[in-house]
Amino acid sequence: MNTSAKMPSDVISSDKVEGTAVYNETGDKLGSTDDLMIDKRSGQIRYAFLEFGGFLGMGTDRYPLPWNVLKYDTSREGYVVPVNKAQLEGAPRYSDDDPPDYTGDYGRKVNDYYGVNW
Amino acid sequence: MNTSAKMPSDVISSDKVEGTAVYNETGDKLGSTDDLMIDKRSGQIRYAFLEFGGFLGMGTDRYPLPWNVLKYDTSREGYVVPVNKAQLEGAPRYSDDDPPDYTGDYGRKVNDYYGVNW
Repeated sequence: MNTSAKMPSDVISSDKVEGTAVYNETGDKLGSTDDLMIDKRSGQIRYAFLEFGGFLGMGTDRYPLPWNVLKYDTSREGYVVPVNKAQLEGAPRYSDDDPPDYTGDYGRKVNDYYGVNW
Repeated sequence: MNTSAKMPSDVISSDKVEGTAVYNETGDKLGSTDDLMIDKRSGQIRYAFLEFGGFLGMGTDRYPLPWNVLKYDTSREGYVVPVNKAQLEGAPRYSDDDPPDYTGDYGRKVNDYYGVNW
């Protein structure tokens, strides 16, 4: 076996990322991931959407989380984010029937909220 | 308007990438994109799957295409790949009911076929 090359054995399908549980650092489940938002040119994922709230598909809010805020925890089989519920309450979000325009300003707002710079 | 910052206005949701038409350079439709395969650590998309053939969900073959082989063509509203149908016939593929292990060797095989190095 050749284990020296850095090759994409450590990959996951978008289908599997979507719908994965998201926890905060104290182990509370915040919600689950939904769509991913991708930079068209580079193929780099910018955001994963955290979906929570909502019942029977009604009134679900979606929170764009910068990809590098999400850390996969194999023991929990989910992503862990350094965000508590109170922080999430003030975070950028939108309802499914009113998606924002992904302008530069919107991106800055999301990144600033989570203290992420690229 | 501040247009100087390189921010993610040029993003697309995974939901929209999945199911987009894929053409070769002479304009033949090869199929459409399906799942994306993502590097877990970096969030970089490695492959998009090209799905073609198959009727009523039966016998569909999936072809992993390195992401940077896909160029979006706004006029066609689809991706264009520098691959002809004959090349595709010899390309790495698998059927839905028999997915490969995404080992380093498999990744090398796919990239070598399309002449891609990372």
